[in-house]
Amino acid sequence: MKQKLSIVKIGGYLIEEEARLSKILDLFSKIEGNKILVHGGGKKATEIGNKLGIETKMSNGRRITDIQSLDVAVMVYSGLVSKNIVAQLQAIGINALGMSGADGNTIQAYKRPVKDVDFGLVGDVKEVNAYGIFQLLQVGFTPVFCALTHDGKGQLLNTNADTIAAEVAIGLSQDFDTTLYYCFEKKGVLQDIEDEDSVITHIDSKNYDVLLAKGIIADGMLPKMHNCFYALRNNVAKVCIGDDSMLSENNSNFTTLTL
Amino acid sequence: MKQKLSIVKIGGYLIEEEARLSKILDLFSKIEGNKILVHGGGKKATEIGNKLGIETKMSNGRRITDIQSLDVAVMVYSGLVSKNIVAQLQAIGINALGMSGADGNTIQAYKRPVKDVDFGLVGDVKEVNAYGIFQLLQVGFTPVFCALTHDGKGQLLNTNADTIAAEVAIGLSQDFDTTLYYCFEKKGVLQDIEDEDSVITHIDSKNYDVLLAKGIIADGMLPKMHNCFYALRNNVAKVCIGDDSMLSENNSNFTTLTL
Repeated sequence: MKQKLSIVKIGGYLIEEEARLSKILDLFSKIEGNKILVHGGGKKATEIGNKLGIETKMSNGRRITDIQSLDVAVMVYSGLVSKNIVAQLQAIGINALGMSGADGNTIQAYKRPVKDVDFGLVGDVKEVNAYGIFQLLQVGFTPVFCALTHDGKGQLLNTNADTIAAEVAIGLSQDFDTTLYYCFEKKGVLQDIEDEDSVITHIDSKNYDVLLAKGIIADGMLPKMHNCFYALRNNVAKVCIGDDSMLSENNSNFTTLTL
Repeated sequence: MKQKLSIVKIGGYLIEEEARLSKILDLFSKIEGNKILVHGGGKKATEIGNKLGIETKMSNGRRITDIQSLDVAVMVYSGLVSKNIVAQLQAIGINALGMSGADGNTIQAYKRPVKDVDFGLVGDVKEVNAYGIFQLLQVGFTPVFCALTHDGKGQLLNTNADTIAAEVAIGLSQDFDTTLYYCFEKKGVLQDIEDEDSVITHIDSKNYDVLLAKGIIADGMLPKMHNCFYALRNNVAKVCIGDDSMLSENNSNFTTLTL
């Protein structure tokens, strides 16, 4: 039987507020078995970028990563956010190791090809070095990934943290019985966006199409759902979406996705 | 017989100039056997700190690390400098892993006690987790340490990179036949500070006292020498000081220190 592995992605305001972050790290530390944390850090990067006078460049609502923005992302994601999370996890007994995809060559990517838009130094994942991550888990480390990859030729690349979580989960599903948790600011996928208590507790391929057709899943939720089903179709056992309380043992009020 | 381990500390302008950094990383990649890189990043941190409007606070010529300065150090050392070095090493076949002392709980420190001066968030090394570093080396990773440690209670601390190199070398000398290389901007310890070709090729405890008495070793070289002899007295086999060419196979024009 495969060993269990939990991959938890945290983002948005969960990592902006100190007390909230402490709470989620505490819940994460209590997860039994192998585990991996993946974090974003976008808001903090925007804040530091603004202070440094670096404009956030957008094209059709999508962020463009030029070399200056990448430097800020590297400083904030793999520096400020990663190392503070690692230090806090160490303080509660988790032997965390903060990593970008360049570290241990764990996640290689290629620069996104230019079609209508040149996104700049943005990477689409090419390969997850599952064996390298497996080795770290086996010797007792808990990898903490930020939203950065590399191209294997010396260039760091900005890669969406949700995507990194999905790709790492897929890469490790050959060796592990993997559950992927997407923690964000809502309790789950909501039937009614205005009603926090209207969590849809289970989504599978069948009712997903219905929810899409009804427009219940729309906007920012679409790429998240895309990542979830992409992971499920590639051997990830289970994907869960909810807020930090999803990691508590006695809570079942979140969205579970299966094929 | 113990396995060989080379610990190379790079700092100053060696890591500021892209071409120079590439050259030194290339030389580092060719060192046979187990190896560890330790880097500073002070000038870049000052530059980013200035851009963010953070004043460098000094007391008697010593830098004080307040929370804002620490954040900058974390962003620059463990983010910008570390990850770019790691990506470059990966591109030349070295499976580098960029770390602070919090990662893998590799280097614990305590906040420097307040005597005449409160240095702020500066850490003096308490313990190197030699076994953790050993495990990383055994599975084929090349650790790249920056100048940050943690207190085990969630606080990151700023720690001098020369000290980190010495402490890591000492910690690993039980398991390895360790050589510590301090790469800086001069060819070695100079007999005449004005003459780049006056390298003293060998210093031991005996002629060290003579060099001290004559004032040949003074100023910034004193803490470096202190680190060297501290390492040698604690089982590090050999310490070398010189510029990047010291890592070339055919060069012997640098300073070697033994007890």
